[in-house]
Amino acid sequence: MKDLTNFDLYEVGYDIPAKPGMDAADIQTPALVLDLDALERNVRKMGDYAKAHGMRHRAHGKMHKSVDVLKLQMDLGGAIGVCCQKVSEAEVFARAGIKEILVSNQVRDPAKIARLAQLPKISGGEVIVCVDDVANIADLSAAAVTAGTTLGVFVEIDCGAGRCGVTTTPAVVEIAKAAVAAGNLIYRGIQAYQGAMQHMDDFGARKARIDAAIAQVQDAVDALKAEGIDTDLVSGGGTGSYCFESTSGLYNELQCGSYAFMDADYGRILDKDGQRIDAGEWENAFFILTSVMSHAKPDKAICDAGLKAQSVDSGLPVIYGRDDVEYVKCSDEHGVIADPNAVLKVGEKLRLVPGHCDPTANVHDWYVGVRNGKVECVWPVSARGKAY
Amino acid sequence: MKDLTNFDLYEVGYDIPAKPGMDAADIQTPALVLDLDALERNVRKMGDYAKAHGMRHRAHGKMHKSVDVLKLQMDLGGAIGVCCQKVSEAEVFARAGIKEILVSNQVRDPAKIARLAQLPKISGGEVIVCVDDVANIADLSAAAVTAGTTLGVFVEIDCGAGRCGVTTTPAVVEIAKAAVAAGNLIYRGIQAYQGAMQHMDDFGARKARIDAAIAQVQDAVDALKAEGIDTDLVSGGGTGSYCFESTSGLYNELQCGSYAFMDADYGRILDKDGQRIDAGEWENAFFILTSVMSHAKPDKAICDAGLKAQSVDSGLPVIYGRDDVEYVKCSDEHGVIADPNAVLKVGEKLRLVPGHCDPTANVHDWYVGVRNGKVECVWPVSARGKAY
Repeated sequence: MKDLTNFDLYEVGYDIPAKPGMDAADIQTPALVLDLDALERNVRKMGDYAKAHGMRHRAHGKMHKSVDVLKLQMDLGGAIGVCCQKVSEAEVFARAGIKEILVSNQVRDPAKIARLAQLPKISGGEVIVCVDDVANIADLSAAAVTAGTTLGVFVEIDCGAGRCGVTTTPAVVEIAKAAVAAGNLIYRGIQAYQGAMQHMDDFGARKARIDAAIAQVQDAVDALKAEGIDTDLVSGGGTGSYCFESTSGLYNELQCGSYAFMDADYGRILDKDGQRIDAGEWENAFFILTSVMSHAKPDKAICDAGLKAQSVDSGLPVIYGRDDVEYVKCSDEHGVIADPNAVLKVGEKLRLVPGHCDPTANVHDWYVGVRNGKVECVWPVSARGKAY
Repeated sequence: MKDLTNFDLYEVGYDIPAKPGMDAADIQTPALVLDLDALERNVRKMGDYAKAHGMRHRAHGKMHKSVDVLKLQMDLGGAIGVCCQKVSEAEVFARAGIKEILVSNQVRDPAKIARLAQLPKISGGEVIVCVDDVANIADLSAAAVTAGTTLGVFVEIDCGAGRCGVTTTPAVVEIAKAAVAAGNLIYRGIQAYQGAMQHMDDFGARKARIDAAIAQVQDAVDALKAEGIDTDLVSGGGTGSYCFESTSGLYNELQCGSYAFMDADYGRILDKDGQRIDAGEWENAFFILTSVMSHAKPDKAICDAGLKAQSVDSGLPVIYGRDDVEYVKCSDEHGVIADPNAVLKVGEKLRLVPGHCDPTANVHDWYVGVRNGKVECVWPVSARGKAY
């Protein structure tokens, strides 16, 4: 691998979109740009909030896939560690020395379970994994015994996301009891992340979903208690819900990710006062910098950020700070911008707020950190492509 | 950089999803899998077709972003070179020694133009770029003079795609004349790619669009001829239209890409007999291999290929060869599969045909080539992320 810290070895364009010290105007587009001031304010704000509410914050690494962004969340925001979704992603953070790692997902493939069981030796810290099937317990235990490590177990409850997770209290109890009984495993608690409501616009509608989830998880915790099993951690909560989990008296660990960057889809949800959350609660810190590359038709500008520069699963990007032009169509390599008054010039650069930050970060190799018009840092998207 | 040919240095999972020689059953998922037999049949078929119709085939590298796939298209399919959409993509193919490179797009940023002008020195061959604004000619010429190279110019006509390209014959003539007059540029011809109709299902509707495009391009070629300017190459045509361009008597260069891999969205379009093109014309050679990782709800299986393993801009993936189960929802890390009869088992592997091959290839680092149940090769997605 190239020495990622020695940018003298790098060719701007071929290797990287920018070098530290460069004027921000010279960044090669399309590129992911982080507004470092806004990012730091978001990170400190969530850190202060979690501290004030007595919550652990285990920042979600799947969002940014970046060791550098995670370290900012730990240093400035007091995050205690990282959530990862895949073993390969967790390996990146473990190799970077992150001591508290949660694989917030199921790991079932024997080869992946063997890799997972090695992680505590690599990181030197605790590794927890989610389980939603009692049959998984024996496999995890055997791998941990073979590796000579200990794995923590969260029982995953499906509290409405409709993906992984068990839905009944007896199923939770069965898995937790098996974890308690198994060699080299420790029952560490419950994961209950209500993914399906994070993006509902209405504050009251989101609260109703989380109230139901809290009741469901409380029932499981009580049943475990009756069996003599204490639940140390109850983990969950995202950018659209953390205010509910953190005042539940039940959850004690948050998993927020998107708050740090913001995106167009999250930005549209409303806070308790009916205000968009990107209009006060969180700042847009994450942009695709794009250039106008063609304006052959007077009412239409073509920019260089298409599907290879972003994911449009949650809608098209929004042009930041502009209401006179609109990104209206996205193809592989092009974005079509409606420019009814022909105000844009070829070569002009625009900041796009992508629809969905997580899969957008995952198509880029680099974050370009900008402050006061200068490139301050270029960070690798460390776990990019680590989906397996 | 790691030695990409020495897989002994690689850890399966952390570095790559598989190693050559491995059983296909042991590939770590999600992974991009190429059915090498099907891929080779597609590549030979297009090569035979182009040869029989006297067409040059300049295969589109934006689709696969792979030097290895391109070499297959050149070796088995007689492709004469490559189309690229970005300078950074073209740099990858130039460094691999590809002699005929077309940047099938506009290049306007001064730094990118300077890099473009270096490319003929790197590849040792011809580099052509598209132009849709006469103001671009002076910049390209100056950069080529500075670099001591010659660049070919295609005037780009917008024949219906609604992206880059001029729409009138006088604009084509103006740019071509400027290219002829400019130092270190050569007017090489016209690009007219009708991107907007490639995915229209109906054969007759596609033909009508291309007939209009052919008339538009013919008018420009005739006007140039009247000015004493001969048009050597007329380039265009995709998987949904190549049969029209190749019998037009006007076009002489095809730019097809997706035919080699196929995808679910292209597969749905119909040939002249009303048959889906993936039911005879082209084979599915490109899959996302995914594993079932949770089945906690009886009617729903969760697989490990979500938005980090594919782009869903053109629809959800289709589960290959199965009509008893259906991929119904895609989130960041998960796919939800409706499994009404609970036939899937945890750990079971499925092949997904992604909705759109180009942006799906662009989220992966590796192609795993499979034949007869064994991993035969692992190829880097050489120009992955090269969007700038």
